[in-house]
Amino acid sequence: MPELRKDPVIGRWVIIATERAKRPSAYVQNREKPKQGFCPFCRGQESHTPPEVLAYRDAGSPHNGPGWWVRVVPNKFPALQIEGPLKRTGEGMYDRMNGVGAHEVVIESPEHNMSLADHSPKQVQEVLWAFRDRVIELKKDQRFRYIMIFKNHGREAGASLDHPHSQMIALPIVPKRVQEEIEGSRRYWDYKERCVFCDIIHQEEKDQVRMIMENASFMAIAPFASRFPFESWILPKEHSLYFHEIQKNQLVDLAELLRGLLARMKEVLEDPPYNFMVHTAPFEHNGIPYYHWHIEVIPKLTSVAGFEWGTGFYINPTPPEDAARYLSGKVADIQEIQASQIH
Amino acid sequence: MPELRKDPVIGRWVIIATERAKRPSAYVQNREKPKQGFCPFCRGQESHTPPEVLAYRDAGSPHNGPGWWVRVVPNKFPALQIEGPLKRTGEGMYDRMNGVGAHEVVIESPEHNMSLADHSPKQVQEVLWAFRDRVIELKKDQRFRYIMIFKNHGREAGASLDHPHSQMIALPIVPKRVQEEIEGSRRYWDYKERCVFCDIIHQEEKDQVRMIMENASFMAIAPFASRFPFESWILPKEHSLYFHEIQKNQLVDLAELLRGLLARMKEVLEDPPYNFMVHTAPFEHNGIPYYHWHIEVIPKLTSVAGFEWGTGFYINPTPPEDAARYLSGKVADIQEIQASQIH
Repeated sequence: MPELRKDPVIGRWVIIATERAKRPSAYVQNREKPKQGFCPFCRGQESHTPPEVLAYRDAGSPHNGPGWWVRVVPNKFPALQIEGPLKRTGEGMYDRMNGVGAHEVVIESPEHNMSLADHSPKQVQEVLWAFRDRVIELKKDQRFRYIMIFKNHGREAGASLDHPHSQMIALPIVPKRVQEEIEGSRRYWDYKERCVFCDIIHQEEKDQVRMIMENASFMAIAPFASRFPFESWILPKEHSLYFHEIQKNQLVDLAELLRGLLARMKEVLEDPPYNFMVHTAPFEHNGIPYYHWHIEVIPKLTSVAGFEWGTGFYINPTPPEDAARYLSGKVADIQEIQASQIH
Repeated sequence: MPELRKDPVIGRWVIIATERAKRPSAYVQNREKPKQGFCPFCRGQESHTPPEVLAYRDAGSPHNGPGWWVRVVPNKFPALQIEGPLKRTGEGMYDRMNGVGAHEVVIESPEHNMSLADHSPKQVQEVLWAFRDRVIELKKDQRFRYIMIFKNHGREAGASLDHPHSQMIALPIVPKRVQEEIEGSRRYWDYKERCVFCDIIHQEEKDQVRMIMENASFMAIAPFASRFPFESWILPKEHSLYFHEIQKNQLVDLAELLRGLLARMKEVLEDPPYNFMVHTAPFEHNGIPYYHWHIEVIPKLTSVAGFEWGTGFYINPTPPEDAARYLSGKVADIQEIQASQIH
């Protein structure tokens, strides 16, 4: 069973895979790109995944057969395992916990070569509904304190299969990064009696220099202190704690904006590898006034290097104001290059 | 001038390059590996770097000419700039600071194809002396509160030039990651009245399952809660706050251990890309009893993906106990594979 271990200095938890432990040679082989052959996520290959936990499918089509447009299955190689109670144990000064959790894969469509940027807004809505439905279901399990929804697009961003999919991991602890955001926004609330994210929305509406796109319910911005070039955040304009409490008209707007942003990134950066993560409040924080859910999108254009690992501090070679101009379509790269060659 | 910006939620600082800002096309081109031609760090090319700030060289050899064995120069494309006073300003709810700091490159030898793993222990000692000498010099500047020494080896780990070199960045703030370690070790001290790193050393000496190698003054371990496969820490056995206060006999031992560990990684993982970072106390923490400097070495074998970005939590597919067995030479990968095929 996988194991959770806690760093005794920083207090950060790590998931250690103990069963399918990888040997050195596995990493060396990994450097050559694996060939793409058979795909277990394609239409007709349903028997090659664990049985589905959710599928949106044609009426009357059989479970675990074709006829679906979005399908959710447990991960075949889960980072955490669903069975058993939580146990914490010590080993001298060290702490460990058994790796209880859920790890699911959301197959975004039966089409192997269609990413979220290429689909209709309607199909993206269906993927978002699947996220919501699974959160509602998984949060009934009292062992889980947080559910992280994320996507790895492209090998360099950590995707091990090319067929477009997202993932959800239900965790028995509240992760450090989420804890930090909750604490940061609480500190701001204590001082200002306002939500820090609502203030960001207000200032970005006014400044307009980091705005990428917006519609009635959502906005996409290049955040003021972007860690990475072309990092983008999608924020609901209305203050809201939990992604899973999204309303139908808002979900329609979110699908439009997410699809639009990913399509712009695909165009401007020529289909870059990227990650997105849904940041939402832990279940136990029900009712707090100071957190505001949002989505972070990070194209993977630079390497995280020694300075970043050592300091937790980032060097970003593209100011967010420039990123917003390119992503919003206010300026085209090629034009700028030609202009700069004239000087 | 580069600019420091603070994330209003998390409080994390980011360095935004405002002058040589990169356009989208720069990242697209970047995906093809640049060809290796002329190298400004090689012997005889000294005029192609900014003037040296330190060089260990043959008596009588001219500054910025050949005859050196370790050479330190300012970075030609610095993340921070050395001139000017520190200024903090606000912009609505946001905070910025001008990008004052120093960014230097330690050229580890005139040989283009010799990495630290290939050199004599004596040459590695010389590199460590250069680190120490530059810290002692830079810390005289009252604007600097922290100096990060780090190395990026290989393109995937962020190295933009192949010629072996390390880097040093002097910062006007104490970085978040360092702050977290200081706070974590203070909490442990408050509870136990012992140094958490000294306790780690003690437990690893006793358990022996995560020990990679050791000598009189240092040990290399695979840490209990390793974030990455084959992550390794080098710790001085004697409690000590600052790397730059290292004594001569300790430095000789450190050079032997660092070279030995990097040579083992090169052998076992076939010259992986890696980063190392020297974690030392901020200058202002002079005299605190609870911090203990050390070096972290991270081979880059896996991608940091959405789950890690979202949670600050890592999935490590190789238990540190296994990593220590491979790196210490107790087991060879190829033998294990053959053994497992027999079953």
